[in-house]
This record gives sequence, structure tokens and C-alpha cells, in this order.
Amino acid sequence: MTPSHQLDFERQERCNFPEFVYAEFKTFPQICAILDAFIAQKIPVMTTRIVREMLDPLKARFPDAVVDVEARTMTLGAYPKRPGVVKIVSAGTSDMPVAREALNTLIFMGADAEIVADVGVAGIHRLLAKRDYLSCADVLIAVAGMEGALPSVLGGLFPQPVIAVPTSVGYGVAAGGHTALMAMLTSCASGITVVNIDNGFGAALAALRILSCLQK
Amino acid sequence: MTPSHQLDFERQERCNFPEFVYAEFKTFPQICAILDAFIAQKIPVMTTRIVREMLDPLKARFPDAVVDVEARTMTLGAYPKRPGVVKIVSAGTSDMPVAREALNTLIFMGADAEIVADVGVAGIHRLLAKRDYLSCADVLIAVAGMEGALPSVLGGLFPQPVIAVPTSVGYGVAAGGHTALMAMLTSCASGITVVNIDNGFGAALAALRILSCLQK
Amino acid sequence: MTPSHQLDFERQERCNFPEFVYAEFKTFPQICAILDAFIAQKIPVMTTRIVREMLDPLKARFPDAVVDVEARTMTLGAYPKRPGVVKIVSAGTSDMPVAREALNTLIFMGADAEIVADVGVAGIHRLLAKRDYLSCADVLIAVAGMEGALPSVLGGLFPQPVIAVPTSVGYGVAAGGHTALMAMLTSCASGITVVNIDNGFGAALAALRILSCLQK
Amino acid sequence: MTPSHQLDFERQERCNFPEFVYAEFKTFPQICAILDAFIAQKIPVMTTRIVREMLDPLKARFPDAVVDVEARTMTLGAYPKRPGVVKIVSAGTSDMPVAREALNTLIFMGADAEIVADVGVAGIHRLLAKRDYLSCADVLIAVAGMEGALPSVLGGLFPQPVIAVPTSVGYGVAAGGHTALMAMLTSCASGITVVNIDNGFGAALAALRILSCLQK
Amino acid sequence: MTPSHQLDFERQERCNFPEFVYAEFKTFPQICAILDAFIAQKIPVMTTRIVREMLDPLKARFPDAVVDVEARTMTLGAYPKRPGVVKIVSAGTSDMPVAREALNTLIFMGADAEIVADVGVAGIHRLLAKRDYLSCADVLIAVAGMEGALPSVLGGLFPQPVIAVPTSVGYGVAAGGHTALMAMLTSCASGITVVNIDNGFGAALAALRILSCLQK
Amino acid sequence: MTPSHQLDFERQERCNFPEFVYAEFKTFPQICAILDAFIAQKIPVMTTRIVREMLDPLKARFPDAVVDVEARTMTLGAYPKRPGVVKIVSAGTSDMPVAREALNTLIFMGADAEIVADVGVAGIHRLLAKRDYLSCADVLIAVAGMEGALPSVLGGLFPQPVIAVPTSVGYGVAAGGHTALMAMLTSCASGITVVNIDNGFGAALAALRILSCLQK
Amino acid sequence: MTPSHQLDFERQERCNFPEFVYAEFKTFPQICAILDAFIAQKIPVMTTRIVREMLDPLKARFPDAVVDVEARTMTLGAYPKRPGVVKIVSAGTSDMPVAREALNTLIFMGADAEIVADVGVAGIHRLLAKRDYLSCADVLIAVAGMEGALPSVLGGLFPQPVIAVPTSVGYGVAAGGHTALMAMLTSCASGITVVNIDNGFGAALAALRILSCLQK
Amino acid sequence: MTPSHQLDFERQERCNFPEFVYAEFKTFPQICAILDAFIAQKIPVMTTRIVREMLDPLKARFPDAVVDVEARTMTLGAYPKRPGVVKIVSAGTSDMPVAREALNTLIFMGADAEIVADVGVAGIHRLLAKRDYLSCADVLIAVAGMEGALPSVLGGLFPQPVIAVPTSVGYGVAAGGHTALMAMLTSCASGITVVNIDNGFGAALAALRILSCLQK
Repeated sequence: MTPSHQLDFERQERCNFPEFVYAEFKTFPQICAILDAFIAQKIPVMTTRIVREMLDPLKARFPDAVVDVEARTMTLGAYPKRPGVVKIVSAGTSDMPVAREALNTLIFMGADAEIVADVGVAGIHRLLAKRDYLSCADVLIAVAGMEGALPSVLGGLFPQPVIAVPTSVGYGVAAGGHTALMAMLTSCASGITVVNIDNGFGAALAALRILSCLQK
Repeated sequence: MTPSHQLDFERQERCNFPEFVYAEFKTFPQICAILDAFIAQKIPVMTTRIVREMLDPLKARFPDAVVDVEARTMTLGAYPKRPGVVKIVSAGTSDMPVAREALNTLIFMGADAEIVADVGVAGIHRLLAKRDYLSCADVLIAVAGMEGALPSVLGGLFPQPVIAVPTSVGYGVAAGGHTALMAMLTSCASGITVVNIDNGFGAALAALRILSCLQK
Repeated sequence: MTPSHQLDFERQERCNFPEFVYAEFKTFPQICAILDAFIAQKIPVMTTRIVREMLDPLKARFPDAVVDVEARTMTLGAYPKRPGVVKIVSAGTSDMPVAREALNTLIFMGADAEIVADVGVAGIHRLLAKRDYLSCADVLIAVAGMEGALPSVLGGLFPQPVIAVPTSVGYGVAAGGHTALMAMLTSCASGITVVNIDNGFGAALAALRILSCLQK
Repeated sequence: MTPSHQLDFERQERCNFPEFVYAEFKTFPQICAILDAFIAQKIPVMTTRIVREMLDPLKARFPDAVVDVEARTMTLGAYPKRPGVVKIVSAGTSDMPVAREALNTLIFMGADAEIVADVGVAGIHRLLAKRDYLSCADVLIAVAGMEGALPSVLGGLFPQPVIAVPTSVGYGVAAGGHTALMAMLTSCASGITVVNIDNGFGAALAALRILSCLQK
Repeated sequence: MTPSHQLDFERQERCNFPEFVYAEFKTFPQICAILDAFIAQKIPVMTTRIVREMLDPLKARFPDAVVDVEARTMTLGAYPKRPGVVKIVSAGTSDMPVAREALNTLIFMGADAEIVADVGVAGIHRLLAKRDYLSCADVLIAVAGMEGALPSVLGGLFPQPVIAVPTSVGYGVAAGGHTALMAMLTSCASGITVVNIDNGFGAALAALRILSCLQK
Repeated sequence: MTPSHQLDFERQERCNFPEFVYAEFKTFPQICAILDAFIAQKIPVMTTRIVREMLDPLKARFPDAVVDVEARTMTLGAYPKRPGVVKIVSAGTSDMPVAREALNTLIFMGADAEIVADVGVAGIHRLLAKRDYLSCADVLIAVAGMEGALPSVLGGLFPQPVIAVPTSVGYGVAAGGHTALMAMLTSCASGITVVNIDNGFGAALAALRILSCLQK
Repeated sequence: MTPSHQLDFERQERCNFPEFVYAEFKTFPQICAILDAFIAQKIPVMTTRIVREMLDPLKARFPDAVVDVEARTMTLGAYPKRPGVVKIVSAGTSDMPVAREALNTLIFMGADAEIVADVGVAGIHRLLAKRDYLSCADVLIAVAGMEGALPSVLGGLFPQPVIAVPTSVGYGVAAGGHTALMAMLTSCASGITVVNIDNGFGAALAALRILSCLQK
Repeated sequence: MTPSHQLDFERQERCNFPEFVYAEFKTFPQICAILDAFIAQKIPVMTTRIVREMLDPLKARFPDAVVDVEARTMTLGAYPKRPGVVKIVSAGTSDMPVAREALNTLIFMGADAEIVADVGVAGIHRLLAKRDYLSCADVLIAVAGMEGALPSVLGGLFPQPVIAVPTSVGYGVAAGGHTALMAMLTSCASGITVVNIDNGFGAALAALRILSCLQK
């Protein structure tokens, strides 16, 4: 049998970003083996979606790692600074784990990123008050659960790329983020793009693909 | 066999509104028989959701009726004026058939009602510009398709009852109004209530139930 | 980074009701910080959907609070009495947590509210026996799981606003309240409005928006 | 290749009822060939769910047949009378095609059957007024669309077998009868059984299986 | 506030069966209070869907009760014998909890009932070998999960009423019993009726409604 | 712009079968251009899922083609005979279009194939009577709509590969073939594989992939 | 009543792109009135998703317009050239209407855009052969129906932003594009973003938002 | 009552493979009783989908058994070697439990099987590098979660039978494997067949049915 994981060290070259370790369905030994391979190659590495019970054991096993308990991420090292600014706008306090996953990914990759929290559409004045502050971003990431209306309002106010991240915040027909996802995909504001539910990581990588345009 | 329709003339007494004729699944003879019974009793009557091909034959058969082709409604007579003001706020031009069904129902029942059209959230300034104008309503009806975000913004701006009507406007994951419906039900603005997709009629009756509070 | 929660103290002014604390997706420190801010401003505050394990710690941290274990709510203080009567009608014993969430919210806001329990449609005589008692309400809230038929019968018997709350009671195709929700939205009784599954809180706020009409 | 249809003339012996011809997905020649085989054997035969455009050609091809345009059924001959009474209770005028499919099937099979129409739960007094009349039935068939609440009320009022038939009447979240189906399956009244959407035929056969108990 | 449960002691008279106690969403004190009321009236009582952790406490509190751990039911007393035979046919070993819930309900109500286990359609010879044995039943209850094909085969072999009970046995697209439910509803065998997923109790009550025909 | 279709003439070499023309979403000129390219290369070609209105124009444009109106296929030429026998077993008359699509594909590719029609599980004796006849096949294709139970019975009776094809035959919860599909995927008979709804073509190609094993 | 459409001429200033006319749910007079307003202001305007029967009347009414029958778009004028290159990669011939909607939108807005057609993953060599050609794009738009796998492969090969557009091509479980949509959202290639089903227009606007980064 | 399990020892004769023990919904005593019966008959037996907490007790009770904790399988004995080679290709490390269930089943049945791991389509070069190695297989099993694109690429590269196994790896719209399942069923590569989510066992048995062709 071939080994159960084949590291893809060329991905950096092909895609401008490295392989990340998606921990959710992996065992502790599988994760450790992969991280050790990165460390051996002296390549920075980020792990995402660590199940809660594995956070402490991983911290103990990799004492140099930076662990974010809320976002369930762990980073070993980081990439050098790159140009471009990303603002992560979140609708409510409960969306912070996803917003922070995006933030941590961007910072790990060297981007300038920041969260603007709790500016959901039920208090539209809070968002309007941040208008100037947000207008200097190169890319906007909009994080929202429940009815997921934030990207529609952002997309109508700003010309930048808007990447919408539905979150699983809410209950009943919020349906674990499915309603926010569908609402974002059928937004009346044009040119918004969407990633999977709770996928702050994917939104960050999409933003990084865009920031690369700045470097040309 | 009992007759296929039993008119419920006491509904006015029990519920403060009469029986309406829901035409969609009825045959032309069934509809005519019901309307004739109302005319014989000299009771005003409104027919809703008339299938498009039946609009002209009904107009020909009941020349005194008022037919709204866009809303697919027909009224014979109307009820006396009653106190209270309802503003029907619609997100886009395509939502007009549903907004007009609500409007026609309210006017038939004697209420003071008006449509404020095309103020969807992708151009939030258009809605904010109407703020004073809307604040004098007793009840707000919010009509929107696609992501259905309008009621969330309205519910955060106004203290009045907000009745949300999802419409089947949109394509793909708009899912015939299902996404707007779910988004409205899981709105982050509190105290919003929702009716079935495209149910302008139901929203109007819900508003009438509320307006009755004013008469006490 | 901006703070993860921005209190919206002006909501009372805009909407006639204050910000509530939705606890489900928040951490213990996040909840405490928000409640402390309310206490500091001497504003009454209500917390909803507290996860079961957090009920005792919150009670310990805020000894003056009133905690309802069944409804998973906690209130600190209350608003002054306001005019209007709300009757909360529930289909079965199992619907009590949701009915009580509505009740607690209404009482916190100063409204006169009461639960009429266990009058589901499989024993229609129990509901008919309460007919006079219910007819004096300004607003009816109907709480039901399973097939969610209660609001249809209520809507045909009473002229008042009827706010339907589907509950997640039932199994199999009850689908966590989804069937009750859909049944309520497609009710043959006209003018009923609906809120999210298990959303007793939202139904209470919708009732409060209606009661405000009485004050004009 | 074997022929595309193999008649199952022994079904009468095994199941107490014959093979019926389900026309919906069959071509005109396929249907005619099957009916000719029955006629050749001098066996009564009933055809169901005839697509609307095929009703006239079939009537022309089989002039002795009895065609019900509303129910889209056609019968050639009938079975002898059998003991037992079935009452088909329908919620609204729009449910008549399904109620009539059940009625025609029962009459074709020799049963005593009758429709009690338009007694939906939004006007509960209409149903209660029929209580004595319905109590003499051996089996009740409840036909309803929209929220499908009728069987719940019937099941709580009567001890007989109640077979619930959801219909595709309604729009939006009525979802082509899916909501009525799910509501009937999760009814709070015990011992109700359910058949497929619009399946008046299946409900009639289920009633016939029950009526056979009377003959023992 | 009215009490949270109103016992419906007249149900026996209206429906030929008493009120049962559906335990799943009730608290331990709520269940005990209801059972005490039955005991006080010297009426036999059956409790269904007891959550696993409550089985032992209930057994301790009601030492005279008969508890079936697999079916999660508890009975106090029983009704006198009544005529009629019900055979409960189950597809696999894993369907036993549901089959036993049906069995216990029928026995509690005085019926003659028996389970014929593990005769699923993938080994059709096992079912055919039981053909004579099953043919003497008045009613057949078919219990099956996964693809739920058993009732289709039974319905084609036997003339009796067949009540199909889908179970939540299976994984992936078995979808917690939803696929079996849908398959049973769209069975090519005519006159089969269906109850909710895992609803052995409901199937038993439906059988009892049918058995009552025998007594006339 | 590159041309809208790039013919993949090497597919024969890679996959042992050629490119087929899937007509459903293509325009008449697009289809003709592709077929002309095949004719120019003197390669046999088969077109599937031709929309009904295009059958006659295509027949007129390609007079040498063999058109099957029921299966909506058209073939120009055929491949040489190959070893192996496929039996296509269909549940009902209405499943013939899908069974014939599979048949035509297999014959076009040179395989020995035959349909055994109308042997659905509601008349299990019809299937058992064909047992010897079917046992000589190398591969079985089972075509069924509604509850899709046929493959479960076949899989329990025969050791050969069984490829299940759900069809869109049925109404209501048959859900356009979705229920049959899900039932087949969760069959209690082991080792059955499944293709998309109505995909007789795909089942035939899967059978051909298997028949290639015989040639080794 | 306010007019049913309020033109948003400031959108160009806010968002860097103008208001487009989404024709699907609008009447012919509504569309004409909006286009006349643009013409009066001498602003270029593009109309999308024109229902097929309205294409000829619109062409007749606006003889200067450029109509694309396949993409169902119409443009009057165009915006000046802007920097940046977009490559639209489509999986199959049937995806061309959506690919062309994206193309027309980009060209109308002045961008350099091109379609690379029919390079779906079942013939992976066709895509690999275009690798160099695609690597010079600033943004990639991937258009695919059925299983929607194309963006996953593209995202693994290229560092550019990849905007995935699911199409409604396919049948059965393709589910009108829903499966492709879900597959794209859960792609194993990181940093891909997705728009609504068949939304070539939205993908083009998202690409334009990204191209604006180049101008800074 | 008949016993709850009837062993089907003739299945080997009918189907070329024995009965397996599907443990998921069975109790520990039920499983032990079945295994003891096999041991008494000296027949090899394999148990699948053992719930995690039962793995150690079963190991203790059957010390001669081979237990695979990752795949949750247990085997007692094995069948003799048979001709034919199966390659199990998996997309990611997280798919290993399902791939190993397939592997263990094949080895238990005497087949030559092997896993080729972590060759998902986001790094297409890893798969292309294995092309020669895979081309010698008689059957390919493709195991993938998330968007499930692997079988489409395999089906386009190889002429062998390809059995696709969707896995529940992924989150959000991966929907527990539902998206991978649907994507595989609607693959643009022809002649692929699919089994239930996570059903490595079923894929192995389907492969064994095919390998039997080699023996003829």
C-alpha cells in the first residue's frame, strides 16, 4: 500500500500558496506525521479545523506553534509580508470563529488583514459609520450567518471584490448556514462570490489569489 | 354527494373578514357559481390567483368587476373605509405582482394602503431616503425575492409590525422564493413575521387583523 | 481589531424594544461582558437560548437574575407595564419551553401575557372550551410542533392577529419543526403569520410591535 | 424481447382486487392493447391518471367506457356490490379531482362510497356539523392539500380507520403536496395512515383491503 | 396559567383507545404527574419513546410497570382481550425496536399480535416460506428500513390491509428512514398505507382501528 | 474563441468506447456539425436524449440513421460483435424508454443484449418464473421507477453484477426518480451499483466496461 | 404610488459598474421604459436573461442593439477598454450560453475576455494542453454543469483567482445545477469562489471587481 | 415469536458471497449470537460498521478475530484466493477508513487488492503519475469525499469498470457525502457506477461480482 498522505510541496510553485493541513477528519498521528514533514523541510505550515479535544495535545506536541482556540487553527512559522489590505467584516459576535480563521490564514500568508466586527444589517447605521474605513481595502470578506444579508449591502456600497462567507450561526431554518449560503448566492448586489459554510480559510485563500494581481 | 363548495358567510362575523375566492385550482364554472352566490347575497367579493387564461373570460362574465392583470385579482364591490395606514415596501420592479395583490386586498377591505417600490438593499440609500415617509405607517409589508434581505433592514429601522412576503423572483438557488422565505424567517432583526411565498393576499389579511387593534 | 461586540443602545429608540442577548453561539466571557455593560448603564436586559451547561454558571455570576431553566432564559430587571393582552396557546405539554420563552419575553417587556396549554387539534373540544377565554386577547400566539395545525383552527375562530410558532417537537418527518413551519405557512386560514422554529422570543417581539398600535 | 406488458390476471385471486391500468407514463397504443386484453377476457377494468389530451381519444376508442374528466379515470364495467360504507371527506373544492378518483375506484369495486366536500379546518363548525353523518362510516378517507390538518381533527373525533390523502393543492411551501403529506404523517392524532400525494386510487384500495375484514 | 397537561380521559369513548404518554420531549416530573393521574383513576396506561436515561428512574418510580428496554416502552396494566390477529413482519434484526413497540402497543390494547422477524427482500425465499403462516392475519404490519421494499412484496402477495412502518435503520442515503418512507409511499403494490418513521406505535393503533371493524 | 466542441476521437483508445453525442442541451446545428465530423471520419456514432421535436428533423437530415422514438436515440453505423450477454430487467411498461436506451447502446457497441419487461416486485411470481432465463447473463441491468425495489430482489437471487437504473416513473414522492435512486443506493442486497436517474445509456456503458473483463 | 422602478445612476460611481437590466421577471413595457431612460441619458446599457419570446420584439424596438440569441443578452453601446485579461473555461458545448453571458458582460464593460470551450475533466488531456495558454490570464472563470469538477482541477493548476459558475446542464441528480454548485463550493482546491447557477453575468462582474485592483 | 435473526447460509450458493454481519444497529448480544452460529458452522465471517465502543469488547470476546480499528471491521477466518486485481484509489488521507473497509472486504473474500492513497484532483499530477500502475487493475474503486471529482477523471483515463464510493469527508455543503454522491452519479465520464455514502463494503462486493466474470 502507498502511504496514506503524499505531501504536495510543489503546490506553492503552482498556486502561490502551500498545502495546508485540514485536521478535521485526520487522526492525531496522521496530523503529527504531516507537520513533522513540514518542519523537517523548514516550511511554515498552518493547520485548520482542529477538533476541540485535539487542541491541547497538539499544543503540547508542538510547543512553538501558535494556537487560536476560538478559530481552532495552529500555525508554525509564517510567510513574509506581501502587499494588499483585506478587511474582514462580520455581522455578529457569534461569527468571530470564522472571521478569525480567515484572519489567521491571511496573516500566516503575510497579508495585511483586520476584522471589523458586529456590523450586521439589523443596525445598518453601525455599518454606514465604517464606510470610509472599509473603502481603503483591496478585498472585502463578509462573514454572516442567519439570513446572510451583509454581503448584499456591502456589494452595493463598495466597488472592491466582496467574498461572502456564510456561517452556521442561527437555529431552525438557519439550517446550519445553508440559508445564509443560498441568500448570498442569490444576492441582488452583483459580482459577489461565495465560499462554503464556515469556510473562513477558503475566503482568505481566495483573497490571496486576488492580492497576487497587485504584484504584477 | 354534498355540493363541492359550502360558502362560509359567517366568516365575516367570526374573523372580521369575509371568505375570498382562491381561483388557482378551481374550474371556471366553480368560480362563477361561487361569485354568483356572493352577488345574489349582495356581498362584495374578491378573487385571487386567477390563472392568466381565465382573466378575460371572467372579465367578460362579470363586466362590473375590477380586474388587475398584473396581480391576477378581480373584485366586485368593496368594503367601507377603516382606520389605519399600511405601506407596502418592495425590493424590485419584479416584485410588483405580489405587492399589488397585497395592495388590492387592502383597498378592497377599506384600508389606506400604498406601495413604495424598488428600494432593495443593494442600493440602501434609496431606502434610507424614504425613512420619514415610511415612519407614519401603522403596519409595514416588506415584499422581496432573491435573498430577501429587505425586512431585516426595515425591522432594524422601524418599530412597527413588519410582515415579510418572500417572492419567487430570482433563479437558481433563489429556488422559487424558498431562499427569501428562509432568510426572512431567520432574520437578525427581531419581531418580523413571515407569510408564504408570493402571498401578498395573506400579508394584507395579517395587516388587517392588526389594524383591528386600532379600532378598539 | 475592533471589539467583537458593539452594543446598540439606540435600538430602544428606533424599535421600541432594546437589544437582547442571544447566548447560543457566544462564549461565557462574551455573554458576561455584554451583561456587565447593560448593568453599568442600569438598563434591564434579557438573555435567551442559554445552552444548558451555562445556566448554573450564569446564575452564580449574576445572582440577581431570574433564570427559567425550562425556557433557558435569564432576565435582569424588567420594563414597566404596557397596555394589551397576549394569550399564548400551545398544542402539547412538550411545547412548553417555547411557550415559556415567549411568555418570559412579554413579561420582561411589561406586557400582560398568559399561556393556555395542551389544547392541540386531536382533542378539538379542549380548544373550543377555551373560546370565550381566548376571545379577549389582543394578540394570539399559537405554539405547536408535529403537524402544526393549531394556528389554522385558531385563525378560523378568531379575528385577532395570530402569530404561529412551530416547535421542534416530534420525530421522523416532523423534521425538527420543519413540517410544522411549512404547514403553518401554507395554512388554509388567512392572515396568519409565522416565525422561525422554536422562536418564542421572536413571536413575543412581533406581538409587542402590534401592541404598540394600541398606544397610539 | 419479451412483450412490454405482462397482464397479471391472478392478482384478483391473490389480493382481492384486479390489476388497474395506470395510464400516466403509457402511450396510447400501450393502453389500448392492455384494455383490449381485459375486454377479450370479459373482465371489468379501470384506468387511472389519464393525461388530459388522451381522455377524448380513449372515449372515442372505447365508446362503452365511463369517463370522469375531473378525476381523469375511465371504467369499463364494474364489480358486484360488496358490504361496507366509505366516506370521503375533503377539505376544499380544489381537492375534488383526488376525492373523485377515490370515489370512482370504490364504486368500480362495488363499495358504497360518498364524498363530504369542503369541510376544511379553517371553518371547523362545518366539519362538526357533519359529525353524526360521518360516524356511520366503516372507513374514512380524508383528502386535503395545503397544511393537511383535516385528518388530525378527524382522527381525534372518530374511532374508525382514517386514511389520509395529501393533495397537491396550494402554492409556495405547499410544495406540491409535500407539506400536507409530512403533516399527515406526523399528525398528533394516533393511528392515522397515509398514502402518496394525490393518490385517491391508493386510498380507495386501502379502504377495500379493510372492508374485506367485514366479510369474514 | 393553565396546567401544562390536560388529560383527555374521554378519548377512549371517542376513539376506542385511550390517551398514551409520549415521553420523548417531556421531563421526568411531567411524565410522573401524568402517570399518577392515570393510576389514581385506575386506568391502564402505556408510555412510549422513553429516552434511554429515563428507563431506570421510571422503573424505580413505578415498580409495577412492565418496561421493554429495546422498545423503550412502559406499561401499567392492560386492556381486555379483543378479537383479531395482527402479524408484524420485519425486514431485519435491526428493525426489532420498532417492531416491538408495535407489538407491545397491540398487546397492551388486548390484541393478538406476533412478530415474524428477519424476512427482508434480499432473501426472498425466507418470506415466501412464511406465506401460509401470514395468510391467517387480519392485518399485516410491515417494518423495514434501508430501501423499505418489504411492503411492496407483501402487498402483492396478500389481500389484507398492509400498514408499512419505515425505520431509521441504514446510513448515508437511508437518510434516517426518509428513503424507506418515500419508497413505501410510492410502492407499486396498491392499497398500502404508511405511518411516520419508526412509528411502530402508530401502526399498532391503525391496526386497532381496523380490528374494530371485526367487532361490528 | 476556440470552437465550442472539441471531438475526442482518442477516447475509443483510452476507454474502449467512443465519444457519444448527448443531444439534450445542444442546438440542431451543434448536433449536425458533430455528427458530420464523425461521418467524415467514417466512425459509427450514437446520439442520445434527443429532444422530441428534434427527432424528425434529425431523421430527415441523416436518412441512413436508425432512430428509436421511444428511447429518443439515433445511431449511424455500429461496432462489431463482442462477447458477453446483458439482460435488461424492467419493472413496468412505463420503464421501457430507459430500458430501450440501454438496449440500443449495447447493440450499437456490438454486445448481445435483451429486455425482460414488466417483472416488478408487486407480482414477484413473474420475476421468479424468469429465474433460469436470467441466470445465464454476464451482467444484469435492473430498470425500475417508483420505489425501485427490483434490484434488491435481483441482487439476492443472482451472483452477477447488477447495475440499477432508477427511472422517473411515478408521481408525488416518487420525486422524478429520486426515491427509486435512493432506495437502490441503500439496498439491503449487497454489491449493487447505481447510475443516475433515467440513465440507461450509462448503465449500458458500465456493462460494457465489465464485459471487457471477459475478453482478457 | 411611487414608480415601479427607480434608476440607480449613481451605482457606477459607488461600484465601478452601472445598473444592468435583469429582464426575466419584467414585462416588455417595463424593460422598454428602463432602456429608454438609459438612452435618454446617453449611458450604455446591457440587458440580461431576456425570455426567448421577447428577443425579437426587443430587437425590433431597439434596432441599434446587439442581441446574442444563445446568451439571451442585448447591449446598447459599451464602456471603454480597461486593462486585464479574463479567460472563460467551459466544460462542455452545452455550457456555452452561460459562458457567452459572461463573455458579453465583460466585453460590454471593456475587458479583454475569451472563451476556452469543451475542456471538461473526463478528457483531462484537453485541459492540460491549454495550460500555457490559460496561465497568462488575470482571472479565470470556470463554467461547468453536471458534477462541476472543472474548477477543482483549474484551482490546483493555476494561482489566479478562479470564479466557478455552475450550470443547469445535466439531468436527474444534476438537479438543475444544484449538484455542480455544491461540488464547486466544497472543492478540495482552495480559494475558489462560486456564484449562483447559470450566473455568467455575476461571474463577469466579480472578475471586473478583481480587475479594478490592476488599475490601482 | 420467531427468532430475531434468521441466518442465510445459502446466500453463498446463490450469490457467490456469504452473509456479512452489519453491526451498526445491532446489540452486543445480537452480534455475538450471530458470530457464534458462524463459528459453530466453521464458516469465515466478517463484521462491518462496528460502533467504536464495541470494538474492544468484541476483540475480547473473539480473541482470534482480526480487528481494523480505522475501518471498524472484524474478520474471523477468510476465503481462499481468487483471480483478479482491484485497485482502490482514494482522494485524501481522510478517506482511508472507507478505503480500508473496501480493502478488508476484498482480502477477506480472497481477492488481490491494494490502496493508492491521496491522489485527489486538486493535485492532478499525483494521479497522472500513477497511470501505468493503475492500468493493470481489473476493477478500479474510487473513494472520494467533498466534491467527489476523482471518478470523473479516472473514468476518462481508464477502460476498466470504475466503482465510485462517496465519503462523508467535508463540512458545510459537503452535506455528509451527499454532494460527492450526487456529483459521482452525474459524472461527465460515462459508465461509472456508484454505491451509498461511505459504503466501501458495497463497492468491494460489487467488484467481486465483476471478478467472477474472470472465472468463467
